[in-house]
Amino acid sequence: MKLVTFTADGREGVGRVDDDGSTVLDLTPVTGERDLVAVIDQWDALASRITSATGLQAVDDPVLRAPIAHPRRDLFAVGKNYREHVAEFGRSGYDTPQRSEDLPEKPIVFSKATTAVTGPYDDVEAHAGITGELDYEAELAVIVGRGGRGIAREDALDHVWGYTIVNDVTARDVQRDHKQWLLGKSLDTHAPMGPWAVSADEVGDLGALEVSSTVNGEPRQKAPVADLIFDVPELIRVISAGITLLPGDVIATGTPAGVGIGFDPPRFLTAGDVVECAITGLGSLRNTIR
Amino acid sequence: MKLVTFTADGREGVGRVDDDGSTVLDLTPVTGERDLVAVIDQWDALASRITSATGLQAVDDPVLRAPIAHPRRDLFAVGKNYREHVAEFGRSGYDTPQRSEDLPEKPIVFSKATTAVTGPYDDVEAHAGITGELDYEAELAVIVGRGGRGIAREDALDHVWGYTIVNDVTARDVQRDHKQWLLGKSLDTHAPMGPWAVSADEVGDLGALEVSSTVNGEPRQKAPVADLIFDVPELIRVISAGITLLPGDVIATGTPAGVGIGFDPPRFLTAGDVVECAITGLGSLRNTIR
Repeated sequence: MKLVTFTADGREGVGRVDDDGSTVLDLTPVTGERDLVAVIDQWDALASRITSATGLQAVDDPVLRAPIAHPRRDLFAVGKNYREHVAEFGRSGYDTPQRSEDLPEKPIVFSKATTAVTGPYDDVEAHAGITGELDYEAELAVIVGRGGRGIAREDALDHVWGYTIVNDVTARDVQRDHKQWLLGKSLDTHAPMGPWAVSADEVGDLGALEVSSTVNGEPRQKAPVADLIFDVPELIRVISAGITLLPGDVIATGTPAGVGIGFDPPRFLTAGDVVECAITGLGSLRNTIR
Repeated sequence: MKLVTFTADGREGVGRVDDDGSTVLDLTPVTGERDLVAVIDQWDALASRITSATGLQAVDDPVLRAPIAHPRRDLFAVGKNYREHVAEFGRSGYDTPQRSEDLPEKPIVFSKATTAVTGPYDDVEAHAGITGELDYEAELAVIVGRGGRGIAREDALDHVWGYTIVNDVTARDVQRDHKQWLLGKSLDTHAPMGPWAVSADEVGDLGALEVSSTVNGEPRQKAPVADLIFDVPELIRVISAGITLLPGDVIATGTPAGVGIGFDPPRFLTAGDVVECAITGLGSLRNTIR
């Protein structure tokens, strides 16, 4: 099932898209909720009502927002989680204070502020006064379903509601200069998300999904999720060890090689550039830098 | 004005405490809100109603929660923001991957997950299976009033609703091993907050406030807020440069020297230890490690 958060006629709602993504059916009359986090929170009660609903109305001219448009807290995000990206990041000199091409021994987890979240086709602000080194990072993002703490690896996927795409847009100079990554990862509009929240049952073999990106149509990133150093169950195990995960939490799992700082010289984004991030079966984000 | 979030008789509410903090007056009939973030969000409309309210009922047996009990997103927090603490952290070997006693050139900003927030007198979980190196950090925390982006230094204090205390409890091994600090700073109950949210008008010269802590009654930290490397207006300027601040956002401003890893050998917290964190005029937190 593919769910979306949409706006239409000045109102916001949660909808279901059909298989080719061209029609949004309004689920508000079925769920009574306009926020996907609330729907996920009540999933056990709502799932069968959603799947069995008939006579749903198609939404006229829906504009897609991020599926998790109102995150209840900052997004979890993971750094240096694909081998080749670890190498390019280490070589780049942005991995401060000490360059390292060594694989991390434990997951590197940081957060992206809620206000960075934006829609799948929205413009991404260049923040020209703050950064001159804007970069893209296509990532598989996990949407947590059932919350919990101390989740074992073997139970981890039972806590996943589904998946979406996040472009973990990064201001490299800010990331480097402030040491901890929060600010460089959290400028407004720097977390495009979507286009859909795809329920886990619709996603087959996670490892076989391919994460890719292009800039102005030119291929940049392309790798299977199987290349993750710390896979989805491991990330859930590690994060939930001491932190209670909540329904609707988002975990962006890291980006493969091919980001702007992977080139020599680096190829940063500038106004007018169009970045597309795609994952097999999850659709694609398309955002223009403004 | 000192506001609190309390529970009593199974319900939660926002109250006002009298000058000696001994009585909590229920503000729910005045504001219609049970969440302090909602009250701060509507402050312009509610302030005069709160100050002029008469006949308020005292709450029987209130239990104080964190004043911002339901943060709308992760807390902002600042590392290495007192000179002597920078030195002790650099010497400790926990400042990885490269020890540095140099003062930071720009603020080091990270976040603490919402689920870490706990009340001013609540127990702090030891998380024995996850960390063996539990540490305390007494900090002045800013509560944002009016939100905004691109806030200038000279306007910054106009965006402050008030202040409270946060103990930025830290699992040092987790902080070190995962490189980015989110996990080590965010274990459940590792952000005791309170006891009150004190409005800015009631706080005199910020720099003169003294931040202190004790462990089992033994003095550990003591420094004036004037020792901050990056002061409150600068932190607001830097964070809001590209991130829209929201009413109710919390910014923990950093901790002075005297934390557990400042000792050689380090003095970590263990079950049964009682940590008190105090700031002039803002009261004190008292939490037992369990």
